[in-house]
Amino acid sequence: MSSEGAARDGKVTIRTVAEDAGVSVAAVSKVLRNAYGVSDAMREKVQESIARLGYRPSTAARGMRGRTFSIGVLLVEMRNPFLPSLMDGAKEVLREASYQAFISVGEARAAIERSLIDSMIDLQMDGVILVAPRLSGELLARYAKQIPMVVIGHHEPGAEAFDTVNSDDRTGARMAVESLIAGGREDIQMASLPRKNGEFDVYVERERGYYEAMEAAGLGDRAKVWPLREQPERPGPALTGLLDLDPLPEGIFCWSDIHAVRLLNEAKMRGIDVPGRLGIVGYDNTPAAGLPLVGLTSVDQRGEEIGRLAADVLLSRIGGRQVPEHILVTPKLVTRGSS
Amino acid sequence: MSSEGAARDGKVTIRTVAEDAGVSVAAVSKVLRNAYGVSDAMREKVQESIARLGYRPSTAARGMRGRTFSIGVLLVEMRNPFLPSLMDGAKEVLREASYQAFISVGEARAAIERSLIDSMIDLQMDGVILVAPRLSGELLARYAKQIPMVVIGHHEPGAEAFDTVNSDDRTGARMAVESLIAGGREDIQMASLPRKNGEFDVYVERERGYYEAMEAAGLGDRAKVWPLREQPERPGPALTGLLDLDPLPEGIFCWSDIHAVRLLNEAKMRGIDVPGRLGIVGYDNTPAAGLPLVGLTSVDQRGEEIGRLAADVLLSRIGGRQVPEHILVTPKLVTRGSS
Repeated sequence: MSSEGAARDGKVTIRTVAEDAGVSVAAVSKVLRNAYGVSDAMREKVQESIARLGYRPSTAARGMRGRTFSIGVLLVEMRNPFLPSLMDGAKEVLREASYQAFISVGEARAAIERSLIDSMIDLQMDGVILVAPRLSGELLARYAKQIPMVVIGHHEPGAEAFDTVNSDDRTGARMAVESLIAGGREDIQMASLPRKNGEFDVYVERERGYYEAMEAAGLGDRAKVWPLREQPERPGPALTGLLDLDPLPEGIFCWSDIHAVRLLNEAKMRGIDVPGRLGIVGYDNTPAAGLPLVGLTSVDQRGEEIGRLAADVLLSRIGGRQVPEHILVTPKLVTRGSS
Repeated sequence: MSSEGAARDGKVTIRTVAEDAGVSVAAVSKVLRNAYGVSDAMREKVQESIARLGYRPSTAARGMRGRTFSIGVLLVEMRNPFLPSLMDGAKEVLREASYQAFISVGEARAAIERSLIDSMIDLQMDGVILVAPRLSGELLARYAKQIPMVVIGHHEPGAEAFDTVNSDDRTGARMAVESLIAGGREDIQMASLPRKNGEFDVYVERERGYYEAMEAAGLGDRAKVWPLREQPERPGPALTGLLDLDPLPEGIFCWSDIHAVRLLNEAKMRGIDVPGRLGIVGYDNTPAAGLPLVGLTSVDQRGEEIGRLAADVLLSRIGGRQVPEHILVTPKLVTRGSS
C-alpha cells in the first residue's frame, strides 16, 4: 500500500520507509544511524523496506543526531480561514523532507505563546514556524537562539536571529484601495485594529498601503482609519457602526475578510446598494468571500506560497544557514461583486 | 543579583529564577506547569526572569516524572469549521490541568494518520485525541495500548481499549429530517458520503437517523441517500447535480454544512425558492450557516461540549482509569430561513 504511495508521488522518503515497514520514523532513523537499542527483527524489517523501495537516505537524514523530525507551528487562532492554505503549503514542503508539523494555538496572548514555544523546545522539536505572534521582536530573537525559527505575519526585515516570510501587505492594501478609487470613489475609509505589537503587525503595513494609495490619488486628507475590535461579534467599537456614519463612506477597505464578510452581509441586509453606493474590499480571500451570495472582492495573500517558503527557509536554517532571510510574497486582488 | 549567582556556579535553577523574579519557588513551578490560578502579572514576571537568565526547565525539574504535559490531537483536516469549537472546549479543560495541545492533520489518509500517531508516541506525548480518524477500530485498539486515547467522531460503543465521545448523530439527523417533514415535505433526500471506514463514521449514523425519521413518517419508500464526493469543489458525482433532479426533491438533508452551504448558495443563485420549493438542512452549525445572507438551518453538535468531555475522559484515562467510557452528546437544531 505504501509502496504504491511511493510510486505515486515518485519520492521515497524516510517516512515512506517507515510506513512500508510498519514502524515509526524514529525507528527507521535509529536503524540508519545504527543506534543502540534496535532489535535485529526491527533492523531486518527496515532494511527490507529500504531495499524494496530503493531508498537513499539524504546526508541530512544520515547525519541526524537526535532530530525528532517534528516542527512546531504556533498559530494565533484556528478560525482565520487563511491558515489552512498556509498549512497546506508548509506541510507539502515538510512532508518531502520527512518532517511533521504540530500546531498549537496561542490565542493572541503573549504568556500562552511563550509557554507553548517553551513546550516545543522541551519536546525537542527541530524548529518552529510562528504565525503572527504577539511576542516582541526582542523576545523572538531570544527564542531564536534556542530553536531555529521562521516568523510569518511579522514585518521585521532587520531581524538577525530568525527569518520572516510575509505577504507584501503594503502592496496588497494599495491594490485594494486603488481598485476602490478606480471605481470613482473618493471617500474611502479603512477598518483596522488597535495597535498591539508595535510596528510589526500585518494591519500596520496594510494601513501604510492604504495611506499611500490615498495620497497618491490626492485623497490624503480624506483618509480615515478605524481601530476596531478584532472579533466582530464581541462588544466594543462596532464594525457595523461604520454603516451608521453620516455621510456613509463610498468605500470601505477592511484589513481582513473576518471584518469584511460581516460588513458586507450587514450592508446588504440593510438594503445598502453594494457596490453602487458602497464598495467593500477585504483581505485574505477566504472561502466565505467566494460564496456566490457573498461575492466579496478581496486580496489573496497566496497563503500556500507563503507556507511553502516558510518551510523552505526553516529547513535551510535547521540545515545550518546563519544569514537571515526576509521574504515578501506579492499578493493579488480577486475582484468580485462588492467593488 | 541572582544573575550573578547564576554566573557564579554556572547553573541556573528554579531557585535562581525565583530569586530573580522575587517570588517563591512554588510560584515559578506553577508558571512552568502553566497551572491554573497564576495571575498574568506573576506569569509575566517569572517568564521575564526565565528569558533573561536563559533558564531551561528540564522535565525532571518540572516535577513531572516523565510526563510531558502535552496532548496530541489528530484532526482529519483543518477546514471543517466544527473543529475550532471542539478545540476551544478541549483546551479549556487541558489548560486547567496544565496540559498543552499539539494538533496534527492526517488529511483523511490512513498512512499519514499512522505516522502522526507514531510521532506523538515518539515525542512522548501523554495522550491523544483523535478526531474522525480513518483507521480501523482494530488498529485504534492496538495504538491505545501504547498511548491513552479518546476518539471523537467514531461510533464504536463496544471499544474496550479507548474512550469515545460523539455527537448523537442519529438523533441529530432525525431532528433535521423531522423539521423538513413538519414543513409538509415528503420527497426528502439526503446528501451523504461514500462508505470509507465501515460502520463507525458519523455520516453512517446520520444516514440511520434519516431513514428512521422517514420511516416513522411513513415515507420509508421515498428515502434516497446520495453518496457524494467529500470536497464539493473536486470532480466527481456533483452535489449541485441534486438541483438538476427532475422532479426536484422538496427537501434535502446534507450530512454536513460543507455541502449544505454550497447547495443553498447554488439553489438561490438558480432562483429556486428556498424554503418554499426546496428546504435545506445542514449539519454542524458552522459560522457560514449563520451569515444573514446564507441563513442555513443546521444541527449544532455542541462541539465545545464534545471537546470538553473528550479532554475530561482522556485525563482520567491518563490518571489510570481502565474501564472504557463512551459518551453521546445530544445535539440541537438551529432553525434559520432555509427550512
